[in-house]
Amino acid sequence: MFLAKVTGNVVATQKVASMTGHKLLTVEPYRVDETRRDRLVPTGRTFVVVDTLGAGVDDFVLICQGSSARLTPETAKLPIDAVVIGLVDTVDVGGSVVYQR
Amino acid sequence: MFLAKVTGNVVATQKVASMTGHKLLTVEPYRVDETRRDRLVPTGRTFVVVDTLGAGVDDFVLICQGSSARLTPETAKLPIDAVVIGLVDTVDVGGSVVYQR
Amino acid sequence: MFLAKVTGNVVATQKVASMTGHKLLTVEPYRVDETRRDRLVPTGRTFVVVDTLGAGVDDFVLICQGSSARLTPETAKLPIDAVVIGLVDTVDVGGSVVYQR
Amino acid sequence: MFLAKVTGNVVATQKVASMTGHKLLTVEPYRVDETRRDRLVPTGRTFVVVDTLGAGVDDFVLICQGSSARLTPETAKLPIDAVVIGLVDTVDVGGSVVYQR
Amino acid sequence: MFLAKVTGNVVATQKVASMTGHKLLTVEPYRVDETRRDRLVPTGRTFVVVDTLGAGVDDFVLICQGSSARLTPETAKLPIDAVVIGLVDTVDVGGSVVYQR
Repeated sequence: MFLAKVTGNVVATQKVASMTGHKLLTVEPYRVDETRRDRLVPTGRTFVVVDTLGAGVDDFVLICQGSSARLTPETAKLPIDAVVIGLVDTVDVGGSVVYQR
Repeated sequence: MFLAKVTGNVVATQKVASMTGHKLLTVEPYRVDETRRDRLVPTGRTFVVVDTLGAGVDDFVLICQGSSARLTPETAKLPIDAVVIGLVDTVDVGGSVVYQR
Repeated sequence: MFLAKVTGNVVATQKVASMTGHKLLTVEPYRVDETRRDRLVPTGRTFVVVDTLGAGVDDFVLICQGSSARLTPETAKLPIDAVVIGLVDTVDVGGSVVYQR
Repeated sequence: MFLAKVTGNVVATQKVASMTGHKLLTVEPYRVDETRRDRLVPTGRTFVVVDTLGAGVDDFVLICQGSSARLTPETAKLPIDAVVIGLVDTVDVGGSVVYQR
Repeated sequence: MFLAKVTGNVVATQKVASMTGHKLLTVEPYRVDETRRDRLVPTGRTFVVVDTLGAGVDDFVLICQGSSARLTPETAKLPIDAVVIGLVDTVDVGGSVVYQR
């Protein structure tokens, strides 16, 4: 899984029928700062994910990719490859808090 | 999933039998501009995807990769790893519209 | 999926039993030229794929990766993650032919 | 699979129900030093993984990604794409020990 | 799949129970030299794979990744994402032998 910040929303009216009613978010993966190791820094990449937990812009979330994105009750048969599996409260690295909600 | 712009078409007459009749598009993934954050920028990568929604060149689409590409009615048993699951209407990032159809 | 040029062959006598008799090719993925947009350019990467369609060196092929590589009649139970699903005839990008067989 | 060092912990209270009680770690993949070949060096990337083996910060672990992350008794139906499958004791490269617990 | 050279061994005593008795190797993927095209060159990346074919350090092997790594008799239910499926004898590129065992 990876840590990501919710950056926005995607609207697609014309879509595969089973996708109707599923919220789509853009997220940017974050990583631990390589040199300072005391904060999370953005990676510049953009993913679109399905959210069933009520995540909003600027929230830090945990993203699961691949076939396992279908292993939640709401996403079981969807043509999706990424889903929010948690809203992140804290990330601790090397003994210090690098993110707190 | 990722956002991509449809860039072209692929024709392959000699192919795995089950692929007959399926439209193949080339797409280029896009990402949010890292510095300005107010627009989508191309990544330079090229993917080939199956389209069942009638996407055309220059449309922005949402692409699902991996085994989940088989989770649409038309692609259920195909040897494919990427499919268009939506035609994008709008993408909102940080409160501003970065793409509108 | 991705576009690739067949670059060579791999021979492996000692292998998982189910792989006996399956042709292995080296391929190099290609992408649309980022600046000129009127041709395909090599990526420098090397993949090994199973071919069941009779592809030869210098042919352009369409490659499917992941579990879907097992969704052809000849590869159904093989320990493979990439297969040729088509021999490419033409690739059109932005209205011009960037590859023709 | 890949070698990684455990760097920290992630807490997410609001999550997909099946994830309750599963420990989440941040890990950084390591690779063999390209030039010296006698040590492991960090890659700068950040993954979040599920741990069922009691791994702690600074431990070297072996990570399995993708659908196979669900192939352990404790993770069978979880929406996860990465799991610790072993605590690494030693890594030998080119005849010399590059990591020892 | 990809071509790789076996570079070393990994020992992990504390692991998921089903992994007991399975040999773990470190491998480095190789690719065709982009400019000269007459040899294989290392990529600098490090993977850990399961081997059931008796591969040893410095052997060139063919690696299958993802769920298909479970499609061999010995690895059917393992939490692994990469396995050796062949010991490479020869690799031919552009008509010349770029690797011979």
